[in-house]
Amino acid sequence: MSKGITSQTKDYAAWYTDVVVKAGLADYGPVKGTMVIKPYGFALWELIKDSFDQMIKETGHVNAYFPLFIPKSFLAKEADHIEGFAKECAVVTHTRLKSDKDKGIIVDPDSRLEEEVIVRPTSETVIWSMYKKWIQSYRDLPLLINQWANVVRWEMRTRLFLRTTEFLWQEGHTAHASSEEAEKETLLILELYRKLAEDYLAIPVHTGLKSESEKFAGADYTYCIEAMMKDKRALQAGTSHNLGQNFAKAFGVTFQSKDNKDEFVYATSWGVSTRLVGGVIMAHGDEKGLRLPPNIAPYQVVVIPIFKNDDEIKIIKEYIDPILSELKAKQIRIHEDWRKESPGYKFNEWEMKGAPLRLEIGLRDIEKNSTMVARRDNGEKQQVNKNELVAQVPILLDQIQQALFSQALKFRDDNTYSVTSYDEFKDLIKKNSGFIKCGWDGDAKTEQAIKDETKATIRVIPINENPKDLLCIYSGKPAKHEVIFAKAY
Amino acid sequence: MSKGITSQTKDYAAWYTDVVVKAGLADYGPVKGTMVIKPYGFALWELIKDSFDQMIKETGHVNAYFPLFIPKSFLAKEADHIEGFAKECAVVTHTRLKSDKDKGIIVDPDSRLEEEVIVRPTSETVIWSMYKKWIQSYRDLPLLINQWANVVRWEMRTRLFLRTTEFLWQEGHTAHASSEEAEKETLLILELYRKLAEDYLAIPVHTGLKSESEKFAGADYTYCIEAMMKDKRALQAGTSHNLGQNFAKAFGVTFQSKDNKDEFVYATSWGVSTRLVGGVIMAHGDEKGLRLPPNIAPYQVVVIPIFKNDDEIKIIKEYIDPILSELKAKQIRIHEDWRKESPGYKFNEWEMKGAPLRLEIGLRDIEKNSTMVARRDNGEKQQVNKNELVAQVPILLDQIQQALFSQALKFRDDNTYSVTSYDEFKDLIKKNSGFIKCGWDGDAKTEQAIKDETKATIRVIPINENPKDLLCIYSGKPAKHEVIFAKAY
Repeated sequence: MSKGITSQTKDYAAWYTDVVVKAGLADYGPVKGTMVIKPYGFALWELIKDSFDQMIKETGHVNAYFPLFIPKSFLAKEADHIEGFAKECAVVTHTRLKSDKDKGIIVDPDSRLEEEVIVRPTSETVIWSMYKKWIQSYRDLPLLINQWANVVRWEMRTRLFLRTTEFLWQEGHTAHASSEEAEKETLLILELYRKLAEDYLAIPVHTGLKSESEKFAGADYTYCIEAMMKDKRALQAGTSHNLGQNFAKAFGVTFQSKDNKDEFVYATSWGVSTRLVGGVIMAHGDEKGLRLPPNIAPYQVVVIPIFKNDDEIKIIKEYIDPILSELKAKQIRIHEDWRKESPGYKFNEWEMKGAPLRLEIGLRDIEKNSTMVARRDNGEKQQVNKNELVAQVPILLDQIQQALFSQALKFRDDNTYSVTSYDEFKDLIKKNSGFIKCGWDGDAKTEQAIKDETKATIRVIPINENPKDLLCIYSGKPAKHEVIFAKAY
Repeated sequence: MSKGITSQTKDYAAWYTDVVVKAGLADYGPVKGTMVIKPYGFALWELIKDSFDQMIKETGHVNAYFPLFIPKSFLAKEADHIEGFAKECAVVTHTRLKSDKDKGIIVDPDSRLEEEVIVRPTSETVIWSMYKKWIQSYRDLPLLINQWANVVRWEMRTRLFLRTTEFLWQEGHTAHASSEEAEKETLLILELYRKLAEDYLAIPVHTGLKSESEKFAGADYTYCIEAMMKDKRALQAGTSHNLGQNFAKAFGVTFQSKDNKDEFVYATSWGVSTRLVGGVIMAHGDEKGLRLPPNIAPYQVVVIPIFKNDDEIKIIKEYIDPILSELKAKQIRIHEDWRKESPGYKFNEWEMKGAPLRLEIGLRDIEKNSTMVARRDNGEKQQVNKNELVAQVPILLDQIQQALFSQALKFRDDNTYSVTSYDEFKDLIKKNSGFIKCGWDGDAKTEQAIKDETKATIRVIPINENPKDLLCIYSGKPAKHEVIFAKAY
């Protein structure tokens, strides 16, 4: 069945790449580290994007667009920020090509820029340079702006969707009159990210804080959603940063407060990216390929007619067209696969592509006035009477959405361990056994030592942590936090 | 009324920039030539984008995403193509920054790329390098792919939306098994562009071919839609290219035909960009600012309550809330402006921002059980009875949409001249009098001579041209084409 894809148990990384390619989600671009998102993968991303876009618009955010190019000097204005991004910047230095007799097409040396330009790795600096122009008074606040854009962070190791030189994302950049408001915004977005992950992607996530060493370069602190993949590694799936006044200070952005004082503006920024597609693949995929949650599946239902000739095609079409019209009127996304390939070939292909429901319809089904309905999540097949099909499909889709979430949650719970001994910790990490909950003394040196010794990092300090009575797994000192350690993507 | 904006008659270019900035559409970015699209301008672009996205999806096209970065060598593979874009390429040469004791943050010379990378000015080359992998047989065709993306063409002179170093656009790239199919696709898209311009943006356009000298670098020929702006100049608003087999040959993309022969694939590409926003501004704007066609206006209706205190606010809210709910249920885009600023201030602002309909509601209106409704297109105001408002608003919006188109069409017709003498031609062009219809002998030298002498260029060879009995305006030879000359953006 899993023709041509590596088994998950044999080599998870190879399985992942096989699925991405065979399901038609993405391909490698010609420049090292770049990715082509193919139509099926892009349709998946568009549905994720549209779901989140609606959420942020409903909460008062607006979209805008800021330039791809950032002056080199801007990046340097916030010390931590440049530190974080200096080693992965695409730098534009020239603006023309020309013909050279010996060498062919070369970069025209006369077109060298006075100040080099950076391709945005993220847009805080260019945006705060604009906010300086736009914000004068408390009346201009809050400013709740988001953009959907491409960003570039030069990568040597590529993994499609997970780690690519260029990726697509949304980045929100908000400006506020008080620290409390900025914190409220940071947490609002964290909650929207949780909702996106759990209700749309069917991926359970832990919400909480990053440790100092894992936070965004330029943030006061970073909240995140953190998920478990099927190989028991953690995936950081979204981050929401409270930037305090760092960027306002770097760019001199002040506002006149209600009581006529000049104050620096408070900021947040937050993003999710095409990495989420990688999360969907790895949270739900199995030996047959993708399993897509109905809420974001490009096709929720794939119809596979079973026919021998054109006459049969005609009969089947007449039979199902009215049913499909009714389903489409309910906003169900349907694909009809009328290609000449064999039904078995199509079954395999749509299993690979993870379509949640498959309807098989041949003459024998029509005689029985029913349709074979197959669920991708659990492989169950059932005959559904024609009269019940329109009502049943949405119910089944909802069940599949829930089932994928429940399975992922059970898998995460089954592979999460509360641990009090460092030996046990090391043993579990060595066996790649998932998430480890334990105490941490809050010391960055402890965190670094554990990372050096085990490659596990603190993925999240959960919102609902309970460090009381816990000791640090490493130092034995009283724990400052209860944290989750894991190996991560 | 037109506080702070230059008069159109005094200085059209200054009027344009004033409107773009004062209406909150866009701003200048920090890197020369770059633009920030502000939320109101981006909402306008999103509506244009969504309208066209739906059209192309309904005609079988799918979206995908290709990389921003193109190897320098790829650009050189198609000779005309590199010729066309060499002088405006952003070139990435390095991938790291580092700290230098004396100079601060510098580009790390050790991070120099072996082969420089170009920021896409357009994506034919990178896409056809992928199509080589994806296309083997006629069964893989047609391939009807579009992407929404940013592209970069380095500009020295900037005009917001019209000419910027980076702009947003869609670029379609299709692959076909025959020349006829490719031509059919090119014309299908031309028709969708016409529809987008005329039915959504309310801008009448000429459709037709570009001359050889004005066609896309790498195309066999280029179709376009061409519009007249209020300063009587022409704006190229969209282009649809029949690329023949040029890119297939440059990248070696062949397919096995039904009769088992290897043939080069036929291609089209086509694009419209954020330049369309500039077209909307210049086709409809007046001395008070923008006038937006309802079909793409971010807010079709702006409600301006007229109140003295919180009690009055409450009364007005109770009165209009049910009406607005009904309008929203009809998918009307509504903005309520409850700010404390004076009604006059708000009237001016929403006139500047071009909102098609303004509803003014105060206590006196409520007493009369009616609402003052003001049209932006013609300034007419009328009292509308409460019971009729929900029915009237969509009718008025439709009338405004039609009126803007009719006005623009009349303006174009009034400023189009059929000319048979070159002296008259020169005189009209000198007076900047609009579009000139005349005969052309088809010779590139004639075209160039006219351009050199008058700065007018052939904007379009209209689909419905009638060159019979015409003589060339310049050479006096029998005309090969009837063409439209104008000065252009």
